[in-house]
Amino acid sequence: MPFEVTILGSNSALPAHGRHPTSQVLNIHDRLFLIDCGEGTQMLLEKYKVKHGRIDNIFISHLHGDHIFGLIGLLTSYHLNHREKSLTVFCPKGLDEIIHLQLKYSDTHLRYPLHFEFYNQQSGAVIFENDFVKVVTVKLTHRIPCAGFIFREKLFPGKNIKPEAIAAYNLSIQQIQGIKKGQDLELANGKIVKNEELTAKPHPPRSYAYCTDTAYDEAILPYIYEADLLYHEATFDKTEEVRAKETFHSTTLQAAMIAKKAQVKKLLLGHFSARYRVLEDLLREAKEVFPNSELGEEGKTFLIPRL
Amino acid sequence: MPFEVTILGSNSALPAHGRHPTSQVLNIHDRLFLIDCGEGTQMLLEKYKVKHGRIDNIFISHLHGDHIFGLIGLLTSYHLNHREKSLTVFCPKGLDEIIHLQLKYSDTHLRYPLHFEFYNQQSGAVIFENDFVKVVTVKLTHRIPCAGFIFREKLFPGKNIKPEAIAAYNLSIQQIQGIKKGQDLELANGKIVKNEELTAKPHPPRSYAYCTDTAYDEAILPYIYEADLLYHEATFDKTEEVRAKETFHSTTLQAAMIAKKAQVKKLLLGHFSARYRVLEDLLREAKEVFPNSELGEEGKTFLIPRL
Repeated sequence: MPFEVTILGSNSALPAHGRHPTSQVLNIHDRLFLIDCGEGTQMLLEKYKVKHGRIDNIFISHLHGDHIFGLIGLLTSYHLNHREKSLTVFCPKGLDEIIHLQLKYSDTHLRYPLHFEFYNQQSGAVIFENDFVKVVTVKLTHRIPCAGFIFREKLFPGKNIKPEAIAAYNLSIQQIQGIKKGQDLELANGKIVKNEELTAKPHPPRSYAYCTDTAYDEAILPYIYEADLLYHEATFDKTEEVRAKETFHSTTLQAAMIAKKAQVKKLLLGHFSARYRVLEDLLREAKEVFPNSELGEEGKTFLIPRL
Repeated sequence: MPFEVTILGSNSALPAHGRHPTSQVLNIHDRLFLIDCGEGTQMLLEKYKVKHGRIDNIFISHLHGDHIFGLIGLLTSYHLNHREKSLTVFCPKGLDEIIHLQLKYSDTHLRYPLHFEFYNQQSGAVIFENDFVKVVTVKLTHRIPCAGFIFREKLFPGKNIKPEAIAAYNLSIQQIQGIKKGQDLELANGKIVKNEELTAKPHPPRSYAYCTDTAYDEAILPYIYEADLLYHEATFDKTEEVRAKETFHSTTLQAAMIAKKAQVKKLLLGHFSARYRVLEDLLREAKEVFPNSELGEEGKTFLIPRL
């Protein structure tokens, strides 16, 4: 049951040095969730051999171009590739208008149902939920309304049966169903095996927090607390705190401070300014405060293992 | 005085096999003209080291996405790169609405003047003219209104003075101006040198015809007649004539027939369907009818030499 994120675009507004505007794809239990969709996303999905037909839900943080200009191209290509199943875009109001206007002028009538779900940028709203994941918003601090997203794996309903117990007692489907509900097992000889012996502790649910674009803001801490993986923007190096504040972005040190205070397990840096040709210095700065930091480099996949 | 075209994107609607949606840049006397602007154009301009700050005029053939989805990103990047000089987009009505809506929602106020000049899709309209080039439309046959563009170099006003005459007679600026106006030269000893001896025949003006997207249509022939270089779409191979007609595109043979009938000097094929991984067969087909054909491959620059 994978839980992993692949970085597609890692740069800020201007593409540069082979880096692209923001987008990434999250694989949770083999369902794919696209997060943001900068120009070129469809090409990057091809380049990194992502099975993009599995994307049924797209989450858009805000309406700055470097997070949305690739969406119309992706939607149109799905159409040309004969997609039939529906697609939902979670976004601020306005993106629907942008997409529909372009479809109108190109006289394109999508073959598949396209839904827009509008959220507002408050923290703590559950905007998506299925059997194994829910997505919660977190309000970010940017020049225009902007939200981060926390993807939280859900505990499986029922007990987590040990595979070796199935073999040892040659369990029937019916017996397995009972054990999953918490029942003990009665053997043919009348002996009782306690449910605790047959089941393992459930895997702790995993979580991924996506926070870009944003100025430094401790108000997000309760929402991302103890996340397994935090993607936090680090547009600027540590010397650019004033500029970061002015432009509603963060520095490397600020991203690392957020990671430290939220006690996340790992920090991924991203949304790099075009001014940085190489990124190693940015990583070094973050590691001074939060050692388990990594660069969110394009094409890399970051796994969150089950514990 | 260069007159050359660099292919940026050569594919049809779906990007594939490393090929991109349509765009190309024409260098005429070191002024750059962008023609169409599919998704990823700004990255391709960077990749091929085009001096894109010199682009002041953009020509858009029609409003299908594979010809326009990169425009908003390019316009926004000019803004972020502190462009100040004005930019004009020649396009069908509607593109202004598409661009302005996206600027509105991203709260972007361009630093530079952006103008839209709307043309209609009739043939023979001069939609741009400066000292050395004029651009004429040609009506194409596509699913939505679509125009091709003929870029015609203008004859220099005045006579074309021979460089060796300047040295031989040690001509002053004033004398050169007179000779350019057609005057004879009077030497210090009173001897007269005839204007014909001092000037060369003017270079024949060069021309580039851009015709995509379009079904086969001989109505374009008078407008592209004897062009030095014709870019004509060849979305399909020669067996797909029915499909080409249905989708308002052309086959390789049709592109070659147009080139032959228009007696152009050279044909560039482009707008290749994603179904073709390799393109050599398409080229071979066109050459059967029009030997001086080439593939409009991305990153390649095609020079039109002065004769």
